Parts: sequence; C-alpha cells; structure tokens
Amino acid sequence: SQRWQHSGPAKSMEELLRRTVGPLPTYETREKSPVPLESSSIEFMHFYRNLDKAQKSEFLDKLSLEFGVDHGQVLELAGKVLDAQLRDAATVLQAEDRLRYSLTPRYRQLLSHISRVEGGVKFLVDLRADILDIISSKSSDSPHIRDLNGTLKSLLSEWFSVGLLCLERITWQSPCEILQKISQYEAVHPVRNWTDIKRRVGPYRRCYAFTHSAMPGEPLVVLHVALTQEISNNIQAIVREFAAVDSEEDISEINTAVFYSISSTQTGLQGVELGNYLIKRVVRELQSEFPHLAQFSSLSPIPGFSTWLQGILSQHRKESRGAGVLLEQEWEELQAVTGGEARDKPTDSLRRLLCTNEWVRSERLVRALEPALMRLCAWYLYGEKRRGYALDPVANFHLQNGATMWRLNWQADTSPRGITNSCGMMVNYRYYLQETTANSAAYLQTKAVTASEQVLGLVAQFQKNSKL
Amino acid sequence: SQRWQHSGPAKSMEELLRRTVGPLPTYETREKSPVPLESSSIEFMHFYRNLDKAQKSEFLDKLSLEFGVDHGQVLELAGKVLDAQLRDAATVLQAEDRLRYSLTPRYRQLLSHISRVEGGVKFLVDLRADILDIISSKSSDSPHIRDLNGTLKSLLSEWFSVGLLCLERITWQSPCEILQKISQYEAVHPVRNWTDIKRRVGPYRRCYAFTHSAMPGEPLVVLHVALTQEISNNIQAIVREFAAVDSEEDISEINTAVFYSISSTQTGLQGVELGNYLIKRVVRELQSEFPHLAQFSSLSPIPGFSTWLQGILSQHRKESRGAGVLLEQEWEELQAVTGGEARDKPTDSLRRLLCTNEWVRSERLVRALEPALMRLCAWYLYGEKRRGYALDPVANFHLQNGATMWRLNWQADTSPRGITNSCGMMVNYRYYLQETTANSAAYLQTKAVTASEQVLGLVAQFQKNSKL
Amino acid sequence: SQRWQHSGPAKSMEELLRRTVGPLPTYETREKSPVPLESSSIEFMHFYRNLDKAQKSEFLDKLSLEFGVDHGQVLELAGKVLDAQLRDAATVLQAEDRLRYSLTPRYRQLLSHISRVEGGVKFLVDLRADILDIISSKSSDSPHIRDLNGTLKSLLSEWFSVGLLCLERITWQSPCEILQKISQYEAVHPVRNWTDIKRRVGPYRRCYAFTHSAMPGEPLVVLHVALTQEISNNIQAIVREFAAVDSEEDISEINTAVFYSISSTQTGLQGVELGNYLIKRVVRELQSEFPHLAQFSSLSPIPGFSTWLQGILSQHRKESRGAGVLLEQEWEELQAVTGGEARDKPTDSLRRLLCTNEWVRSERLVRALEPALMRLCAWYLYGEKRRGYALDPVANFHLQNGATMWRLNWQADTSPRGITNSCGMMVNYRYYLQETTANSAAYLQTKAVTASEQVLGLVAQFQKNSKL
Amino acid sequence: SQRWQHSGPAKSMEELLRRTVGPLPTYETREKSPVPLESSSIEFMHFYRNLDKAQKSEFLDKLSLEFGVDHGQVLELAGKVLDAQLRDAATVLQAEDRLRYSLTPRYRQLLSHISRVEGGVKFLVDLRADILDIISSKSSDSPHIRDLNGTLKSLLSEWFSVGLLCLERITWQSPCEILQKISQYEAVHPVRNWTDIKRRVGPYRRCYAFTHSAMPGEPLVVLHVALTQEISNNIQAIVREFAAVDSEEDISEINTAVFYSISSTQTGLQGVELGNYLIKRVVRELQSEFPHLAQFSSLSPIPGFSTWLQGILSQHRKESRGAGVLLEQEWEELQAVTGGEARDKPTDSLRRLLCTNEWVRSERLVRALEPALMRLCAWYLYGEKRRGYALDPVANFHLQNGATMWRLNWQADTSPRGITNSCGMMVNYRYYLQETTANSAAYLQTKAVTASEQVLGLVAQFQKNSKL
Repeated sequence: SQRWQHSGPAKSMEELLRRTVGPLPTYETREKSPVPLESSSIEFMHFYRNLDKAQKSEFLDKLSLEFGVDHGQVLELAGKVLDAQLRDAATVLQAEDRLRYSLTPRYRQLLSHISRVEGGVKFLVDLRADILDIISSKSSDSPHIRDLNGTLKSLLSEWFSVGLLCLERITWQSPCEILQKISQYEAVHPVRNWTDIKRRVGPYRRCYAFTHSAMPGEPLVVLHVALTQEISNNIQAIVREFAAVDSEEDISEINTAVFYSISSTQTGLQGVELGNYLIKRVVRELQSEFPHLAQFSSLSPIPGFSTWLQGILSQHRKESRGAGVLLEQEWEELQAVTGGEARDKPTDSLRRLLCTNEWVRSERLVRALEPALMRLCAWYLYGEKRRGYALDPVANFHLQNGATMWRLNWQADTSPRGITNSCGMMVNYRYYLQETTANSAAYLQTKAVTASEQVLGLVAQFQKNSKL
Repeated sequence: SQRWQHSGPAKSMEELLRRTVGPLPTYETREKSPVPLESSSIEFMHFYRNLDKAQKSEFLDKLSLEFGVDHGQVLELAGKVLDAQLRDAATVLQAEDRLRYSLTPRYRQLLSHISRVEGGVKFLVDLRADILDIISSKSSDSPHIRDLNGTLKSLLSEWFSVGLLCLERITWQSPCEILQKISQYEAVHPVRNWTDIKRRVGPYRRCYAFTHSAMPGEPLVVLHVALTQEISNNIQAIVREFAAVDSEEDISEINTAVFYSISSTQTGLQGVELGNYLIKRVVRELQSEFPHLAQFSSLSPIPGFSTWLQGILSQHRKESRGAGVLLEQEWEELQAVTGGEARDKPTDSLRRLLCTNEWVRSERLVRALEPALMRLCAWYLYGEKRRGYALDPVANFHLQNGATMWRLNWQADTSPRGITNSCGMMVNYRYYLQETTANSAAYLQTKAVTASEQVLGLVAQFQKNSKL
Repeated sequence: SQRWQHSGPAKSMEELLRRTVGPLPTYETREKSPVPLESSSIEFMHFYRNLDKAQKSEFLDKLSLEFGVDHGQVLELAGKVLDAQLRDAATVLQAEDRLRYSLTPRYRQLLSHISRVEGGVKFLVDLRADILDIISSKSSDSPHIRDLNGTLKSLLSEWFSVGLLCLERITWQSPCEILQKISQYEAVHPVRNWTDIKRRVGPYRRCYAFTHSAMPGEPLVVLHVALTQEISNNIQAIVREFAAVDSEEDISEINTAVFYSISSTQTGLQGVELGNYLIKRVVRELQSEFPHLAQFSSLSPIPGFSTWLQGILSQHRKESRGAGVLLEQEWEELQAVTGGEARDKPTDSLRRLLCTNEWVRSERLVRALEPALMRLCAWYLYGEKRRGYALDPVANFHLQNGATMWRLNWQADTSPRGITNSCGMMVNYRYYLQETTANSAAYLQTKAVTASEQVLGLVAQFQKNSKL
Repeated sequence: SQRWQHSGPAKSMEELLRRTVGPLPTYETREKSPVPLESSSIEFMHFYRNLDKAQKSEFLDKLSLEFGVDHGQVLELAGKVLDAQLRDAATVLQAEDRLRYSLTPRYRQLLSHISRVEGGVKFLVDLRADILDIISSKSSDSPHIRDLNGTLKSLLSEWFSVGLLCLERITWQSPCEILQKISQYEAVHPVRNWTDIKRRVGPYRRCYAFTHSAMPGEPLVVLHVALTQEISNNIQAIVREFAAVDSEEDISEINTAVFYSISSTQTGLQGVELGNYLIKRVVRELQSEFPHLAQFSSLSPIPGFSTWLQGILSQHRKESRGAGVLLEQEWEELQAVTGGEARDKPTDSLRRLLCTNEWVRSERLVRALEPALMRLCAWYLYGEKRRGYALDPVANFHLQNGATMWRLNWQADTSPRGITNSCGMMVNYRYYLQETTANSAAYLQTKAVTASEQVLGLVAQFQKNSKL
C-alpha cells in the first residue's frame, strides 16, 4: 500500500529483521528500554504479509535462528547459578533471575510489541497458524522454529486466558457478519443456507461463542446446543428439524442440553485451551437459565473410525486373517444378503461393502452390519490409543474435559459425510457435572477412560471375539 | 461466607497452600496436566481476603519461599545446558527449554489459574498492591517476595498489554458509577463536587480512560484534556472556569490539547506501562476528531519541588552558606518587603517565608520571589537526578514519553496544594509528535533531557549563580 | 442565532403568524397539500422562544383567536348535515366528515408539523405548560386559549400514547445526566446529594421511568419503589437507611413492593395519563423479576391535610365552635401537657400548636394529639370531596388507579416538610391486583371509595364526634 | 390459545363487539372515564386474528356500522351550533367542541386503547391493510368502512409522525433479522441472495430505514443509496457490481448520491407520508458525512410504461391509426431489421415485437427502437395524468417531493423485469436541494412538472409527431 512506498521497499529480509527486531536490553536496563516504535511493528507485519508461502518459511527460519536466545550468555549465567549454589538466598535468586532473563529469545519482545498494535493480536494468531503449518508439513525441521512456536504459544496462552474472553450468545438478532462467520466455521455439520443457520440459533437451540476484545467480531470457539427432552441419538433430528423455527420454547419440554457441535476457528490457537472452558461456561449459563436442567451430553462425530477400520481390514487381508472381525453367523447373514460366494473372505467383503455408501440403502444390510460395526467402533473409541490417550481426537477432547463415554448410536448421522466417516455412528459423551473434575484428572494422569455399561459391553464383546 | 463452612475452615496457611498450590507438572506432562479446579482458586482468594495485614505478609512470605522455584532442579538442568554446549542445535535448545521451564516458580501456575476465575484478575492486581506495600514498608526483606513480585508483574504485563485495553471516552452520559470513580481517583486536581466533574467532561474538555474486559467498570488510567486556543499556563483557568459548561464547542477556537491530569488508579499495576500508551491513543483520537489540532502539551504539577527546596535551604543553613540561592538585589528586595533585619541570613528568611502559604497574599513578595524560585525550580526539574533520570516523578514520566520540558509557569496553580507543593509553579511538557520517539530513546538510553530555551535559560542562570 | 438574520427579524407577530400558520387546505385537497416547509416550523419555534412572558401570552391569544376554526364554514356544514338527515348513509357520512374537518382549527396543522421537527415535540410540551400557566393565572380568560389547550392536549395524548413510551429502569449504571435529572425532579422526598440518589437506585430499591423517543434522555414520569418484607409505615426508613447500600439483595427478604414516590416531570403533559400506566407496567416488571411478590402498596404523602385543617380550625373559631374537633378527655390531656389555661378554646390551642413544628419534640404531645389528628386526617382523605372526587390530589390519583385506602400511619414522615404538610402522617394506598379494575371503574363512575377497616373505623369515630 | 378458554369462546361477533367496544363517555365525563381494561383490547385482537377473510370483512362491516358516530346526537348538536351563532365566543366555541366530540366514532376509543397494548400498534397497521384490501376489492362498498379507514388513518398518522420515527443505518453489522426483512421487502430490484444484500450495505452503498419504537425490528420504509462519481444511468452497475465489496471507500471518488430503491413495507401505512421524510433525513445524513456531496438523484423504475404503451397500441389498432407512433424512417428501419412485410401495420409490428423480451437480443433492433420508445416514454412520464397528477406512481412520488424529471436512460435496466415493465428504460429524478420546496408546492398546487431539457426535448418530439 502507498504508505510504504516512500520508506522504500525493504531490500532484504536481513535488513528488515535487523531494523525491526531490536536487541534484548541488558538485564539492568530491561525496565528502562524505550517503548518501541509502533511503526516498526507495523512495518514487520506489512512485510511479512506480502511474502509468499516459501518466503514466509524462509523468513521464519531466519527469525527463529538468528534472533533467538543468546546461547553464550545462557552458558555463562548457567555457570554462575552453579557457582552461587552455596551462597545466600538473595544471591541464588538473583543468579536464577538473570539466567531466566537470558533464556528469553530476542524475538519475544517484538512479538509482544506487535500485540499492542491494532490488528496485532490477530496477526500473531495467523502467524502461529503459519508456523504450525511449516512444522507439520516438515517444510522446515529446524528446532529453532519449534522454539519460536513455543514462545508464541505461551504468549497467546496469556492473552487468551479465560478471564479475558467474553461469552456471547449468538441469536438471529446478532450481526449478520458474525452469523455468516459462524456458518462458515461450522465444520462438524455444515450449514447449507441461511434457513439452516436461523434454525441453529432459534428456539430449542443455543449457540455460544468466546470472543476476545483484541479481535472484535471474531468468534474463537463456537458451541451449538440443542435443548431437548432426552439425550439425542440422531443429528439430523437436530439440524434438519424445522417445525419449531417460529414456535416459542415451552420450558417444560426442556430437560437436557445436547452439545452437538463445537468448533475452534483459529488454527493459530491450537493448544490454547478454549473449548473446555467454553463448555463449562455454557453449562453455568444454561443452569442459570433453566435451573431444572437434568442432563448434559454431547452428540459427537467419530471422525477417525472408517479410516481406522479400513486399515484394520487391509492388514487382516495381508495377514490372511479375518476371523474376529465378524462372528460366524454375522458373516453368513452378510453373505445371504449380498449373495456373495462362499470362498469370499469376510474382510474383503466388508472392505468392498464399506468403501461406498451404497450399503445404507438396504435395510437388511444395515441390520446385518449393526452388531459388528458397533462392537468395532466401541473398541476404536475406547481401546485405541496414541501415547496412551484416546486415538480419536473428539473422544480425547471430551475425556480430557471429564465426560463419560456414554452411548454409541447406530444410524445417528445418515448424511453422506456421516456414513463415510463413521458408518453413520455417533457417540454421546455425557457430562455428569459432579464427576467431571475427578474424571478429567484420572484420564490425564492415569489415562483411565470412564465409560457406560453399553460401551463397556460392546468393548467386551469385541475383546471376546477379537484376535486383533 | 457460608459456602466454605462445610469444607471446614482451613486449619492453617500450610494446609491451605499445600491444597491449592499444586506441584509443577513434569516437563513431559506440562501440556497434559488437568485443568485445575476453579474451586481451588476461589478457596485461595477467599482465604487470603480474610487475613489481616500481618497475616497476609506472613502468608505471602510462605507462598514465595516454599512454593517457588525448585533450586535443585535448576542446578541439575543448568549443568545439563553446560554439558550440551558442543552438541547439535536441537539438543542445546531442548536443554535450554527444560532449564527455562525449571525456572518457573510453582506459584506461577496458581496465579495463572486465578486469572481465569471471575474477579480473579482484580484479585491479582490487589494482591500485587499488597506485595508492593510489603516490599516498600520493609515489613519483609525476603528476596523471595521480590521474585513473587517479579513473576506477578510479568503476568500482569501480558494481561494488561495495550492490545487488550479498551479506550473509553467519559462524558456526562457515562454511567454514574464510572464518573464517581473518576472523581475519586483524581489525585492531581481534586474534584470537589458533581459540578466540578460535569465541567471536566463537558465542552472544551475530554476525559479518556483505559478499561479492561476482565475488570469492567474500572478505569485503569485516566487522562483529562482541555481543548484551548493556546498552551495553558494556569490550572485554575481549566478546572474552575464554568462559563462554558452548557455552551457548544466552537471548533474554530480549538487549536491545542492540554493534558492537565493523568492518574493511574491501580497501585498493583505499578511498572505496567499504561499512561504512555493512553497519551498516544488519545493524541490519535483527538487528531481524528480535530484534524487541525496543532499543539499538544501537558500542564503538569511539580510535586517534589518544595520538599527539595526546603532540603537545600536546611543544608545551606547548616553549612552556613546562602549565597547562590538569592542574588544580592533579590535579597535586598526581599528584605525591603518583609522588613527583615540586615543580619538575617537569606536562606533562613526564605525558609521561614515559604513554610506557610502566606507569602502569596502579597503581590510584592510574589514579584520579588519569582526570579529566584523559577531559576531554582528549573534546575530542580532539569538538573536533579536519581540514578541518572529526572528526580521529579512527573518530569520523568513525560520525558520517558518523549516530551520536551517546554515552559515553567509562575502562579500556575494558586490552590493551597499548589503553593505548598511547588510554590504555585507548574510546567508544560510539550509533545512534538515528530520528535517524541527520538526524544524518548535519547532520554532512556543516554539520559539526555530535551528542554526549551526558556527552561535552559533559567537553568543557565541558576548555574551561573549557584554554588550548590 | 445567525441563521435567521438574513431572513430579517420578523417584524411583528401578525406577519410571523401569517407566514408560518398556513391556511387549512380545502376538504378536497386535504391529502394533496404540500409537505410544509420545515423552516416555517423552525422559524415559529425560534420566534416564540425569544418572546418574554407577556409577549407569549399575547402571541398565544392571537394564534388561538385568529387561526382557529372558521366558524362560518362550520355553520354552513352544520346546516348541510341537518339537510342530509333523511338521505342515504353515504351522503350522511360524507356531510359529517366535511363538518368534522371544518371543526379542525387552522393552527392544528402547524402544531402537527412542529412535532416533526427535531426538538419539536419537546417544544410543544413546553408550549402547553405555558398555556396552562396562562389559563390558571387568569392572565387570559379567552375561551380560544382553552380551545388551543384542548387541541394541543389531544395531540400530545396521541404522541404520548403508552404504546410509544419506553420503560427504563434507572440504576447506578445509568448515565449521570439522567440520574441528575431524576434527582432534580424528585418532588416528594427531595434528594439531598449523590449518596441519597445512589441509595434510591441501589439494592432493595427500584427506580423506573417512562421515556419517549422524541425526547431522549428525558424521564417523563418517575416511580421509586422499595422492596421490603412488609408494607412500610415510615418514609425515613426508606430514604435515609443506608446500611444496605453495598449489600446484595436477599430475595427471600422481599415480599412487598412499596411505591414511595411518583413524580411527573412535564407540566405540559398534565392530563395525559402516564402515572397510572407506569404503575401497571412496573407491577408487571416486578412480578416477572420476583414471582412471589405478595403485596403492592404506596406510601404516600397527604399534601393538603394541614391546610385543610387550619381552614377548619379558623372557621370553627369564627363560628365559636370547637366541640367535635377534640374529645373532652383529649382536650384535657392537651391542656395538661401544654399547661394551657381553662378558658382557652380547644381550636385556638390546636391552631397555635400546629402552626409550628415544635410539638413533635414532645413525646407526650405527640401521643396526646395522635387520636384526634388520625381521625381528622382519615376524614380529610375519605370524606372531603371536590366535584365528588377526593379533594386530596394524591388520594384522587391512587383511587382512580383502583387502589384501596389501606392504612393511615402516624409519625410516618418526620421531616419538617412532612410535619408541616400533614402533621407527619402518611397513607398507604394498597393495590390488590385482582380488584383495581373494578375499584377504578367504581370510583370514576359512582365516586365510591374503597377503604380498609382501619380507615373506615377512623372515619366512623370522626363522624360520631363531629359536628362539622 | 389457552388463556381464553375459560372465558368461553366469544359466541358471536355481536357479543364480542358489545363487550369490547365501550360506549362513548358523555362529553362531561370524557376525561373521567376509567382507563379501559387491557384485557378487552387483547380479547378483541385475539378474536379478530382468528377470523377468516370473509369473517373479517363481515366483522369490520359490523364494527363500522354499529359502533360509529351517533347520528342523532350529531344532528342535535349541529342544531345547537346553529342556534348559538349570534352568541358570545365562549358559547360558540363550547357548542362547536361538543359537536366535534359527538363526531367521534365510538370505535375510535377502542382503536386508541389497542395502541397501548403490546403489539397493538402493529395490529392496527395490519388491520388497516385488511380494510384497504376490502375497500379496493369492493368486497364491501359500505361508506362506514371508509369512515373507519379514515379514522384509523388519522390515528396512524399521529403515531407515525416523523418526530416519533427513528432513522437507522443498516449495515452488515446489523442484526440478521433486520437484513433478512430488508431483503424480503426489496420490491424494486429483488435481492437474490446474501451476497446481494451484503453488497447493498457495503462500501459505496448506504441503506437507511425508518423504524418505530412501537414496532421494534420492523423497518417501515427503506432507502438504498449508491455513492458514485456521477449520476448513474444503469441499475445493473449498481446492484450487480461486486468488485468493491471488500474495498474501503475512497472519499475522493464520491460526488453523487443515487437513490436507487425506496420501498414501503407496511400496506397499512398507505397515505401516511414516510418516504418523503426519509429522503430528506437521508440527504441531511449524507451531507453531514460527505460535506462535499454535490448531486442527489434517484435512479427510478417506470412501472407503468409498458402497460400504457400496449394500451395505446391496441387502441390505435382498433382505430386503424398508427401514424404518430413511429416516424416514417423509423418504421422503414424496423421493417429492414425484422424483415417484415410492407403491408404490416407499424402498431401491430411494434406490439408483437414488444410483447416478449426477445428484441433486446438484437443490437440493431435496440438501436432502431431507441428514439421512438424514448419519445413515448418521456410523454408517458411527463404528459399522462390522473386527476391532474402524473399517472406513473413513481413519478408522482418524486414530483411531490419536489424533484426534477431529469434524465431518461435507455437500456438502464436490462433485467427481464426491467425490459417487461419499461422496455429497459429508467429515469433519474434529480433533487436540487434549493428548489425542492418550490417545486413540490408548484406540483401539488398547480400540477406543474419541472423537467430537464432532455426530457422536454423528447416530449416536444413526441408532440410534434403524435396524433394521439
């Protein structure tokens, strides 16, 4: 833009970085350094935004490598801490504080200054999204980038601390701008049109978002709730039922809150806990609006099930196994329905059957597959782990929050997407408010999963038959 | 309050601290630690609030001493950093990151959790005020308390980062609650009644405050501005002139913005830069409202002058000096007016004269004292230093912001308070917007003070005559 | 103001009126008349505002006399209605409509146009206040002025119809401007300072006002409510009790709503029903906030009692009567306390006693006077009439609303004002919500007053003894 | 709804009307009648809403016939006015006032009470829409219905007086609800989707509406404005141009305000002047935002042109005329393009050509038809009258407002709708702010139309050739 043409285009990244990323003040003068020029921050932001993807990666490599910690100084001060160990407390603390300060990367200051500029916080959230992309795409495997990521994440965690967030209820009276964003961000059950979104903010529904004063008009995490008489086992009943769109809520018909969608909108805030806090705040909000609300539960997708199942079936095939996936009578029933030949292998049949969504058109097939798929899915959710925690990311989220894996639902999401991702199954994670704290601690510390009898029963059936 | 009575009164500080200040998770599990119980934070806050002053001091001593850094671990990890120095970057960075993590005091986590609770941020601001009080009153000289102070300050700095602050213009339409607070907080030129405050938010005046979403309704720093035709040299003309209270602003009569009062309201935010940012934001705001505004200046008190002068005079007296304070003809004139005897010493006379506010009633005395007091005051502001920076705190604030010491004004504040504090003088620190950045850097880095010819002239007169 | 100088000062009222008060369009073109010039309305308003009081009176006389109804045309069209009486309905209705139109005063159009201009509605409210003042001060006894008054009142009644009013709850968060106005307007129990008003909008208190979109920031009628455990019998307990100013409301302690002050702020809206509607709206508002609220009552002043009593006593004196005011033993007791002589007449003594507020200092006198004054006051409220309705204006207001005259309270307002106006008595008008409609109709149509046994008992005592 | 079941269903209209439409109080007690029961109004509204269309018509017939004016009393009081004609002013005015009061229909009171109930004003607006429908569909030709209509209109005119309306600017930040309504109401250039509406409230566009405090969230009349460099001659350039949807406005490119759509949304407010006032308010609003705005103009449809033209052509055909519609060379050119035969009649050809929208596909046809259609259309707008005023309703609206018929534009609306209604032509009515008042008065009083040279030139060409 024109504002920059007189200062000349920054000739090179080096020059720009040298100019905008100031040196770390000495420990003694750290409180007396001049308030930095806002124009430096703006110049940095402007320069970065005009880079293409490859340049951004190069730029961030340079920033993290050359403007990070002064390792020599760290060594020197680490030595001093060791030397001071037998001295008095004041000396020890002083040495530690100097060491701590020396471990501050030089770019941390710049990031902090940028947050003070208008639009700066949003810039940093987007910058972190770029960094995460670079890390996950392995376009850089520099350990310095990881350090930059850690520094930025810890700053964002402070700025997006829950005390600084604002809970907003979204209604049909909310600004169009925010409703349009909510529609676009809805990843779980896509919003097709404005009638859809009107329904999701209408009677017997609630939609809440956290916003932040530094990013006005931008919902950070969005939670959709249905107010029902019992815990829902079908998502279409929630998002496609329009009868009630102009009715008034009859409070006596509201007994249960079903969280049927939660979406984070900012990739750059990955790892900054927001969803958990949003659920807790919304529970409080709903309790105050409906003091007699008795049940809180999610109705959640199982995004990884089909992929996992295809993996299992492929592997069995290679290993020529197959027993354990289907029981004998299940396999026979399936053959009867599909008219398959006797020499077909169950895993092959199943794999072929599930690779399109055709099977759902046959009621008999749907019935025939139910027991096996329910069993497998229960195991996937309950038994499959990554570093000890639930492999399924949605399961992991709710279990961290202290929910109970409560009910697996057959034919709960019959949209093409639902069939493709999880053979149409969905799961309720139930929030027993008295137990979430204990459950959360147990899960995080001992990796114990709390589950209902239905889920445990399915898991037990799986284990009995499985030779996995 | 009753909510706590069933859990039993915390038997002792130790027990409470052990229960509420959790251990620091290990480095490996630091992202997997359970979200802490909100009730722990609330219990901590409640317990602390019910302590008396001495108990608070004891409690904070304990907290800072026993729940700080694990020094043993720091030593171990500092050793590892030294060991890793010749290894690859990834290893070095990893060792540094572990060391950095080990330097986190255990209580830092708790402080962070408290900030998430309703009212938590305000609690921490007030907690820091207590800590500062303990430190300054020497009721504890523990170096650990200083560490706690440093940790808390750095957290508050992030939470009160300018990007998270909200600029509010205060008018007669603002909520009564906030206007009452603004009145109470006004420390520089006290608000006597509601007509006073109505005037200060009325025509030809502006009042701005920073607020923060975590402390709604609480102005953090307040700036009062007068919109005038020239840079004011008298505060009574600003705060006591009521003719215009119901008039409409005539934009053609507005040429200058005079910042005549800036007050921080939260002791606990000491050292967190707010005033400087507020002035900058207000300048932008005013420029957008009045594009033709040509001059920006403060009209500031000189809170330390009289005390300093009395100190000088006492010292001269002890050392039997006196020459240099008054010129020969000034001394003669003074004797003529007061009818003093020839053998009186000038310093004694002056000291006696200034120890009450009576002298201002005599026009002749006022005239007689002007040259000497102006000279002395110019020197006090420009020449007297503390660790190299201006001794006068208001001067130091504006010079840090990059203002120029522009004009010393005689009989600028004729209120009893003004006479007592600074013999009625006030000073304009002028903001030349093109130069504030350079001035600020020069002052902070080389301690150079930018001043006008008037001020420098007075300083030169002082230096010529002084034998200080 | 300068806008008018080019059009020249209006040379005379006549010229101005002729220019700004257009002729009434003919019946045929009444819907096709050009939208009037806004500048005419503004010129009229400006001209009127610059007149002094006597000129205003003259101006309004002229306006009402010369720009009213065209009497000749009325006669003609009245004749046509008579002629049409045996014709078909269409002809009759047409004749009536023409007659109705001809009865429109020419100035009605102008008033209507003024209401469309910014500030116009407020101008007309103030204009009506002037007209009422002229009428009541007899500075004009023109019947035309009364017609102008009627026309303006009927227009104001439509514009200030309840559907167009906005109920606002006033709190300590409301704009200072509105709270200052509420304080100034409070006529019943004057607000002394900002602590007073803070109390009246604080916990266990409610303050509501009707505002109107055409007069923003201007409360039209204000109702103060105390939320209590029982129906209050003392006003100082409500307006001087500050213990609770920072406490939180304990909903379990709220059982009763006491309307302790209602003030209309706009003289010009006299006769436009607002207070009645405000009470009804507030009752609904309170019921929705506190569903268990069981009692609604006023605690009302008795503004005319003392004046009425002095009148009675004077008259008795002249007529040398006295019996009936005090019972024998009351008279004796009084003499005992005051040490009066036997030949004093009771009415004289009483008159002297009550003409200052000294008597309230003597507990014995207070006790001695209670039965007689309670009896007299009950009669004053219940029995004294003006055109068949209660003489006391406050009584008349609440009885019209359908309230019951419920309890007369001794020593209920011990402020000097309260003693002077009503010997310290106040009365509760109780709103039994199921009965107000019937009560209101009964009072308005048959002039029947609903009263409690306490009041009726006092009235009966009075009647028994009275020889009035 | 259930609230009514206990009071029993109203057995008949008669009973309901008798119960809810009270008698008119006598003249003497007119200010002392009890405030009516809100429940009566609610019952009336509820009853009416549940009627079907035919029942509503019957009901309104009954209401207007049986609860209107007391004709006997009118006769009596008309007589008294005649008798009083030689008496003093007070007697005359009194007689007139009684007569005026007697001319109040009994149902007027009820309508007034309904306006005080929540939702009552909206009910009355919709009621009037029903009445207008009955009148225009001749489903009742009762003169009493017309009286009811007149009474209701005059009440609505007072309640929707401009001083009581609120101007709202609609933006993408406005509530979704209101933007959806604005989209639905847009009758002139239909809004196809949410991108369309986003554009119409985005940069270089303004959208304003009047709302009313008694009908919150309901825009009454909506004005769309384009901010351009010159007066637009094409509507697609305004409503289909999306380049600028996310750009920022460059104030230096804004010179002209084009009103390209104005829609009234409430049939029931027919005849209540709103659009004229909205345009005036918006002009003021725009002038204050863009002090240098130099030109104000509409870009307006010509809804009646094609229908009128087809009428003309049919008539010519019947009368075997044809000359005057097309010039000789125009007719030859047309034949050349269409390949028509020599014996075809011009009017027939033209009629056939224009009865579909095919002709716009041929550039040559478009060129060939331009002069004739422009000439005809100019005449239609300027010369065709109904009761002396412009026949075209849009022309009539802008001429009443004082605009000048400024420029007829060829191919200005190439949408199917535009071609069908007006052969693609649109017209600019230009608002010369200094002249609108005089123009408006001239038009309304003398029916004179102000037009530009372009329009007058076209009209002159038409007149020269026409044998109409």
